[in-house]
Amino acid sequence: MTEADPLPGIERLSLNQITLNNLTLKECAGLCVKHGIRWMAPWRHRVQEIGVAESSRILRESGLGVSSLCRGGFFPASTPAERLARIDDNRRAIDEAAELGALSLVLVCGPAPDRDIDSARAMVADGIAAILPHARERGVRLGIEPLHPMYAADRSVIVTLAEALDLALQFEPAHAGVVIDVFHVWWDPRLYEDIRRASGRILSYHVSDWAVPLPGILTGRSMMGDGVIQLRRIRKAVEESGYGGPIEVEILNQALWDRAPDCVLQETMQRYLDFV
Amino acid sequence: MTEADPLPGIERLSLNQITLNNLTLKECAGLCVKHGIRWMAPWRHRVQEIGVAESSRILRESGLGVSSLCRGGFFPASTPAERLARIDDNRRAIDEAAELGALSLVLVCGPAPDRDIDSARAMVADGIAAILPHARERGVRLGIEPLHPMYAADRSVIVTLAEALDLALQFEPAHAGVVIDVFHVWWDPRLYEDIRRASGRILSYHVSDWAVPLPGILTGRSMMGDGVIQLRRIRKAVEESGYGGPIEVEILNQALWDRAPDCVLQETMQRYLDFV
Repeated sequence: MTEADPLPGIERLSLNQITLNNLTLKECAGLCVKHGIRWMAPWRHRVQEIGVAESSRILRESGLGVSSLCRGGFFPASTPAERLARIDDNRRAIDEAAELGALSLVLVCGPAPDRDIDSARAMVADGIAAILPHARERGVRLGIEPLHPMYAADRSVIVTLAEALDLALQFEPAHAGVVIDVFHVWWDPRLYEDIRRASGRILSYHVSDWAVPLPGILTGRSMMGDGVIQLRRIRKAVEESGYGGPIEVEILNQALWDRAPDCVLQETMQRYLDFV
Repeated sequence: MTEADPLPGIERLSLNQITLNNLTLKECAGLCVKHGIRWMAPWRHRVQEIGVAESSRILRESGLGVSSLCRGGFFPASTPAERLARIDDNRRAIDEAAELGALSLVLVCGPAPDRDIDSARAMVADGIAAILPHARERGVRLGIEPLHPMYAADRSVIVTLAEALDLALQFEPAHAGVVIDVFHVWWDPRLYEDIRRASGRILSYHVSDWAVPLPGILTGRSMMGDGVIQLRRIRKAVEESGYGGPIEVEILNQALWDRAPDCVLQETMQRYLDFV
């Protein structure tokens, strides 16, 4: 590679905890330290198992940076009471992200409670507006993540980078941006145009791959290099748009979860170097 | 319902043959006649089992209109020779569509032969340009169908209505348009804007539903009413954009294929009346 096109070093690799889904936060942090990994992205259910104070202590003492916290969101709901409960939960997620020192809180925005997708999209915008003052107060950045359209019915009505970005642009740049995960956006004919448009708003970058046949729906992701995604091309576009932070490996895949975490982490590091 | 908002009558229902996947063309046509259905959309492999002349005779004598022929497309390939072979096959599909009197030939455009999705998209445009003179000569309309992005890696690099329409607009209106299938496009934040923009170019309209959880990937479609798609809203938008032709029911679903075709067809008719 020429100096004009440097590959990302292992120091930018962040392990999203779901990739080693069977490990507790402490076990996952220990394995990262063992392999010289510098960043980790914990999930809230694993943080809550031991509490945020203990989680924060473990990560700090491990010397691990927290690239993001997964996840807030899920704003749409049938009743005002339920929507308020979701907003309260997001405020707690913001508190957790602040205490962990996470670079961003990932927002998976949630599905429609009925067939009305437009109303659900409006509830997402309202929900983010409602929690933004708390994010500002706690110094937390909210990362709106578009999910692949195959999750539109059960996980997120926000399904394209254009849509996530248009939403983020309604809020102040210091506290709202987008999360780009290649698995969710690789297919989009507008992808590179929207990555350029997202300059200054990219808060997090996630990698995995799209294999054929897809190994599942929720658990459909594969190790980098095993699929069709143009990983180097998308990573370069994201960097040209100004993002130079951690690169999270987030793979939900039952076959990986069934293997020894130590081996999966070694393979993750090699695939990151070879393909990202 | 008011006269301003009439529901589509059963006379617009077309049975896409894949919905009753176990039946031959003759069996499927016979069942349509038994239930008073006026339109059918045959698949090429079923046409080829008995030949296009015999298929045409059966459909004509059954009094069934042919709403579309499934399918041409699959243009991208690794070598020029293979791409030419695909174009030849599409010319044969045009001949079959002409002989069957199909209102359109559906184009499922095909995946990239490697990771290069932009080149594959260019091969699709080149492929359509190459077959258009033959379509003009035979009086056949080519319907470019955007497929759901979850099929981008193995079935179609054309994944949004915007993309399909932009492609169709490069060619003469008399011979190139789009196919709108709710299963493929329902999630799109730009859907209604693009349906308006597609006025005069909508050649075919397909219905099914998106159930949660999805029963499969290729076989992920469900009976209308069993999922989250706003069927009445999309159908009205398509009509307001000028389309008043047959409404094809196209459901790929293993559980439906395992049931008695006669019962599935009765349910299809009732669900069409209740939900489309």
